[in-house]
Amino acid sequence: MNKNRLEAFSDGVIAIIITIMVLELKVPHGNSIDLLLPLLPVFISYVLSFVYLGIYWNNHHHMLHAVWKVSGGMLWANLHLLFWLSLVPFTTAWMGENHLAEWPVALYGVVLLMAAIAYYILQHLILQEHGKESVLAKVIGKDMKGKLSILFYISAIFCSFVNHWLAILLYTLVALMWLIPDRRIEQAFREQEALNRERS
Amino acid sequence: MNKNRLEAFSDGVIAIIITIMVLELKVPHGNSIDLLLPLLPVFISYVLSFVYLGIYWNNHHHMLHAVWKVSGGMLWANLHLLFWLSLVPFTTAWMGENHLAEWPVALYGVVLLMAAIAYYILQHLILQEHGKESVLAKVIGKDMKGKLSILFYISAIFCSFVNHWLAILLYTLVALMWLIPDRRIEQAFREQEALNRERS
Amino acid sequence: MNKNRLEAFSDGVIAIIITIMVLELKVPHGNSIDLLLPLLPVFISYVLSFVYLGIYWNNHHHMLHAVWKVSGGMLWANLHLLFWLSLVPFTTAWMGENHLAEWPVALYGVVLLMAAIAYYILQHLILQEHGKESVLAKVIGKDMKGKLSILFYISAIFCSFVNHWLAILLYTLVALMWLIPDRRIEQAFREQEALNRERS
Amino acid sequence: MNKNRLEAFSDGVIAIIITIMVLELKVPHGNSIDLLLPLLPVFISYVLSFVYLGIYWNNHHHMLHAVWKVSGGMLWANLHLLFWLSLVPFTTAWMGENHLAEWPVALYGVVLLMAAIAYYILQHLILQEHGKESVLAKVIGKDMKGKLSILFYISAIFCSFVNHWLAILLYTLVALMWLIPDRRIEQAFREQEALNRERS
Repeated sequence: MNKNRLEAFSDGVIAIIITIMVLELKVPHGNSIDLLLPLLPVFISYVLSFVYLGIYWNNHHHMLHAVWKVSGGMLWANLHLLFWLSLVPFTTAWMGENHLAEWPVALYGVVLLMAAIAYYILQHLILQEHGKESVLAKVIGKDMKGKLSILFYISAIFCSFVNHWLAILLYTLVALMWLIPDRRIEQAFREQEALNRERS
Repeated sequence: MNKNRLEAFSDGVIAIIITIMVLELKVPHGNSIDLLLPLLPVFISYVLSFVYLGIYWNNHHHMLHAVWKVSGGMLWANLHLLFWLSLVPFTTAWMGENHLAEWPVALYGVVLLMAAIAYYILQHLILQEHGKESVLAKVIGKDMKGKLSILFYISAIFCSFVNHWLAILLYTLVALMWLIPDRRIEQAFREQEALNRERS
Repeated sequence: MNKNRLEAFSDGVIAIIITIMVLELKVPHGNSIDLLLPLLPVFISYVLSFVYLGIYWNNHHHMLHAVWKVSGGMLWANLHLLFWLSLVPFTTAWMGENHLAEWPVALYGVVLLMAAIAYYILQHLILQEHGKESVLAKVIGKDMKGKLSILFYISAIFCSFVNHWLAILLYTLVALMWLIPDRRIEQAFREQEALNRERS
Repeated sequence: MNKNRLEAFSDGVIAIIITIMVLELKVPHGNSIDLLLPLLPVFISYVLSFVYLGIYWNNHHHMLHAVWKVSGGMLWANLHLLFWLSLVPFTTAWMGENHLAEWPVALYGVVLLMAAIAYYILQHLILQEHGKESVLAKVIGKDMKGKLSILFYISAIFCSFVNHWLAILLYTLVALMWLIPDRRIEQAFREQEALNRERS
């Protein structure tokens, strides 16, 4: 019932976060093409964060698709996730403006890590509410990607102080891991739909 | 009928308010971790306001869940509430940038107080429209939390000039009071749903 | 069918316009209460524009409630309205920052006038599509308020150069005229609903 | 099923993009009418981009109207489109602030070109999913407008370095081409609806 509003609110917040990030691409004073070059690290940071927020929106979308009970705890776990995502424009801008320097790159990872943990908590609460035999439980399975992401984020945070490019590489790898379509998820939904049709 | 649009508009405004607040977390010029320290009061203010807006969204959501008649008066009472909430980013930023000084802390409370009064008016109008015997009336009951909040805000405004930390403590206490799930509300809804099922 | 998306998009744009206006309330540097005084004209402008956008949202909401056919022309007439509304934050800020000086006050009126004309065009297109015998046509009637508003805006634009306070007074009067609930509209809807019930 | 959320998210992002562009119309310091004159190229750029985003919203709206299957690929193709559209405020501001100088005008075209390609990819994926015999396929047909737009954008990018006014003219022509209502589309929908009615 109230799932729609939870989705709408999350969509709104993610849409705003994804869009206000572009305000950090400060318009250069002058019309030479050379003025765009110093914006390159800001642009790279923007692309990376855009992809991350796209992934979160996508996964959030898939996870809530199978939800049919919304508890008070879920509402707050969702707000907790949105809180960490709302800090992404800040860390993106700090990283971009400082040409991917160590501390900003580490903080970028910390916020991603916290968002991943917040997502895990939300997922855990949803699973608890829906039971281990639900479609959702089957879809998520052992959630290897989620666990691997957290491991990668922690590694990247430490890497930041050794080689910040390695950290950026790790963030990119996590993003790519999520971008590659998970055939299993779509498969599971299709099986369920086939089952539903048979029953009715 | 038009409830959906009232909800959607409120969600949109609250989502934007909650997100533009983060723009006040101005990106420091430089990449040292020490530059984040002066941002701490801004960050604390942001967290507090994020929680408050989350609470308003949550309560608004619950209150409108049981609404089935929307009057012109309700639309305006709702806009009145959104008006005061829209000032939260301003007071949050003023409070954060001045390290929680007395006047900004007092003004922060004034805006919270006005929002609480606006919420009370909206609630009153909804109850008037739906009758004292509605689920909504039972859920809200004597609205102890609402009345207590207003008392706390007034106290906090006066406290600001004596000890601003005490005021911040009071704001935090009000937030915690609302964060603790209200079992009664969810209980009342469940009872009603059980009743509905019996009837049909 | 696609009415929902037209409403959702309009709600989104109006919600953003109403909220980004508050960004013009620039946080003063310092924590003294005296620093808020120079913000007073900005605040007054903000309140006025907030009310105007609230009125537009409200009227838009009522008008589309009775719409059941959406044409390509209506989509563009709606975007045309949103275009002029999107300029409100600019004129509001210019007026506020210049303590309600003549030219900014006149431009404020020009944008309101253009928005009113855009609204009139949208209304005209909707009526054309739905016929003179529709509920909508009855509700709008002779649209005295709409015509009166346009007259008031034009007067206010000229007044700006004589006495800018008179212009502000006129803008306030138009807003008040719309704020006072139009019993006829709600009445017409109730009658229609009663009719529908009888038929079914 | 999840089409609604795809639409809602796209609407949100486009609504925010269209509205934050107005923030680039920086409020002049002073109240003379002469101060508005230097804003003219910024205003022209704003109008052009507003119309472009309106066209994208409009076309997106029409295209998704006929969609009834949403795949993971479509979600990402849609995000890809939103990414390029999110850069429009940046190129608009750069073009406006530099009085339509050559490089900014060229970059403006590059972003429009990339958005057009992203739209084409999204359209292609949707057609692939729905089959060549679908209403959608008939509506889109040979997509002359889409192909012509891409040709015009490329020409405009090269023109920017010869005569930037010619480039602006080309951008305006493309916008006008899309603004003129496509009777065929509305016709095709009406025929389909008539067919549906006959069948049921």
